[in-house]
Amino acid sequence: MLSTPAGGRTRAGGAGLDPGLDIDAALLLRRLDEIAAFGARPGLGGITRTGLSDEETAARRYLAARCHEDGLTTHVDQAANLIVRRAGADHDKPVVLLGSHLDTVVDGGRLDGTYGVVAACEVVRVLAQAEVELPVEPVAIAFTNEEGAGFPYPFFGSLALTGKVDVAAATVAAERGGLPLRAALRAAGGDLDTIDAAAWPPGSIACYLELHIEQGPVLEAHGIPIGVVDAITGRTILDIAVQGRQGHAGTTPMALRRDALAVAARVVLAVEELATERGLCAVGTVGRLDAEPNVTNVIPGRVELTAEIRDSRPERLRAAERALTGELARLGSATGIDIAATVRPVTAPTPTTEPARQAIAAAAEALGLAHREMFSSAGHDAQIVSDIAPIGMIFVPSHRGISHAPDEHTDDAHLIAGARTLLHSVLRLAGR
Amino acid sequence: MLSTPAGGRTRAGGAGLDPGLDIDAALLLRRLDEIAAFGARPGLGGITRTGLSDEETAARRYLAARCHEDGLTTHVDQAANLIVRRAGADHDKPVVLLGSHLDTVVDGGRLDGTYGVVAACEVVRVLAQAEVELPVEPVAIAFTNEEGAGFPYPFFGSLALTGKVDVAAATVAAERGGLPLRAALRAAGGDLDTIDAAAWPPGSIACYLELHIEQGPVLEAHGIPIGVVDAITGRTILDIAVQGRQGHAGTTPMALRRDALAVAARVVLAVEELATERGLCAVGTVGRLDAEPNVTNVIPGRVELTAEIRDSRPERLRAAERALTGELARLGSATGIDIAATVRPVTAPTPTTEPARQAIAAAAEALGLAHREMFSSAGHDAQIVSDIAPIGMIFVPSHRGISHAPDEHTDDAHLIAGARTLLHSVLRLAGR
Repeated sequence: MLSTPAGGRTRAGGAGLDPGLDIDAALLLRRLDEIAAFGARPGLGGITRTGLSDEETAARRYLAARCHEDGLTTHVDQAANLIVRRAGADHDKPVVLLGSHLDTVVDGGRLDGTYGVVAACEVVRVLAQAEVELPVEPVAIAFTNEEGAGFPYPFFGSLALTGKVDVAAATVAAERGGLPLRAALRAAGGDLDTIDAAAWPPGSIACYLELHIEQGPVLEAHGIPIGVVDAITGRTILDIAVQGRQGHAGTTPMALRRDALAVAARVVLAVEELATERGLCAVGTVGRLDAEPNVTNVIPGRVELTAEIRDSRPERLRAAERALTGELARLGSATGIDIAATVRPVTAPTPTTEPARQAIAAAAEALGLAHREMFSSAGHDAQIVSDIAPIGMIFVPSHRGISHAPDEHTDDAHLIAGARTLLHSVLRLAGR
Repeated sequence: MLSTPAGGRTRAGGAGLDPGLDIDAALLLRRLDEIAAFGARPGLGGITRTGLSDEETAARRYLAARCHEDGLTTHVDQAANLIVRRAGADHDKPVVLLGSHLDTVVDGGRLDGTYGVVAACEVVRVLAQAEVELPVEPVAIAFTNEEGAGFPYPFFGSLALTGKVDVAAATVAAERGGLPLRAALRAAGGDLDTIDAAAWPPGSIACYLELHIEQGPVLEAHGIPIGVVDAITGRTILDIAVQGRQGHAGTTPMALRRDALAVAARVVLAVEELATERGLCAVGTVGRLDAEPNVTNVIPGRVELTAEIRDSRPERLRAAERALTGELARLGSATGIDIAATVRPVTAPTPTTEPARQAIAAAAEALGLAHREMFSSAGHDAQIVSDIAPIGMIFVPSHRGISHAPDEHTDDAHLIAGARTLLHSVLRLAGR
């Protein structure tokens, strides 16, 4: 129920919804189209807009300019997160933070991350235009470098929000990706030297809501437009270095070789087997593999690769990691080749918060949208934010479950329904 | 026996040797040191001076300038091969061509190729300075891009000498290596449009002699300073493309994946097995593997790799190739992933020529150097030149058999002995 005090904002309270409040569907879809141009590779379909790249920075600037035109205030924090508020927002109120990220993987799709950011800005715009007064302040955020594709320190922006960026590790990771972190962050509007100031105080966020495409096949398979995420997958990443001995591919007898790539191939298969034959975790992937010197007629002397394993249960994630490191040790002693593995900080499986789930379900219900609770097999900024705030996540269907690929697609009707659900979830949370 | 006609060059004839003719050992070693600076990576030890790179071009210019100072005439042909002759050389005489290449693999050693070129120039310098008149004219040559490391069209220079460069294929290969062939060749002193003019007429080369480090462990193991090569290995290279489907590493169930890297790993092991468990060829190597998009949290959608297999017997080389393409077909249908393989023009196993072998053995004998006939497991420009001329090859020991790597090493005494053997092999051939 919204009441309108004289000369002021309308007031949302109780469990009611203002049936007149709605997102601008055409504007939502147009913004998505516009932002898809940043990092698009003509003729290829895919989008490459990695974290702290010029493309991500340009997309952030573009979206900030549009929000500014819409009468919202915008701010880029020390981690280059874009923060969008209503003009004259009360900074003392607890915040309902809505967001996701603008960066993509290499040759990724147009919706992953961007959809949640654009919808969050639209919700804040609608609530600003309606001059709705709420007990909590809606704020949109676009986190920097969630994917870690060009700069292998994923969740950089959300980690900064929670005060957990390890500057030394991030700098090393950025260097590995050929990115001078300090300069790239400055170009994006951030500041590595004062990044601690990007952290939000405990209690400042009443709830974080993230709207996202599912990136899997479940909702489409069941014909359900809205997913209420109950938990987000855990992930362990191992950086593995295989150190063999470079040599001539013609003159070095097979028995005398220390072929780093032949051993790395066995590692790739071992990671796959963790999730297939051995059933120790939900999925296991080697996404990146770099051989040196990577020349036809030279035995590779060194290979670096990353293995990532995911599961919803912490004990399974740990068991799969133990099994993999055990297998690496076995391979190393069988081949006489040095295999070093570094485990990156583990992203633990993360449950969402009950009140957030209830608000999302109730909003979908009121909008006449079928919904179901479900698990997220992908990692999200919400996982990081859960460290300092309650979290909720809304999923919309992904066509054929495809994501992190150019042909990622969600029907417009689903995109619109998701943004509506986000808007009304905020009102539900505000009404508590 | 050398006689000295009044006022003219000394004359070499019969089977005799002039004991006074010798290479300048200090100069030979100094030149090697000087050229090692081109493409050296400070602090790393290895040399990266790939074909038609700025580094190869600079090394070629440097060596040409030194030869010019030594009173020799230098010429760069249409394929950017450096050709060094005695001043006033008779262009109608058949040539004894001495050479090798200046390009290296990525992070390679200082001797592979370069040693043979520097020694060839030194032999021509000694014969020029001694004003020895010979029935054949000694000419040194540095072939362009023997390795094919930066530009995967190996033997570019020697193929041009024999009129066998496929300009279209070379251009495509160069593009794949990010090298604009026409411009790079021009910068190096060549000319793609008139490359046919780099071909030497049949009969113009009486013999081609190549001095090279062994790149394997045989000579060192037997304590023998000089190898007389009886045949050079054959090589088949397959360019293999594995086309899977890019996808999200968290949300794509294992059963629905088309992981190009997981299949490529099986290809790597299949190539290894050709030469180990299956014993079908001498060696099998995957030296190069590139995954796309090569990002931690994305299932690789495509992998390109090269397999090379080598053997001294043509029928074994063919059998190993058939076995590999059969295995690729089996893997493709087992995984439902498209695997395409292109076989590059095969380098057939190549015998050296009897008179060349005899001349080398006799020269070593006269110099008091132990020698043995042996097989070359590495490919060499000599193989290509064999198409239009008799060939011979001289090997010197490689410490621990290491090559195509920064710690490639041959003792100075062996380097000097090899160059002396080259000089006296020329005199032997001239004396026939």
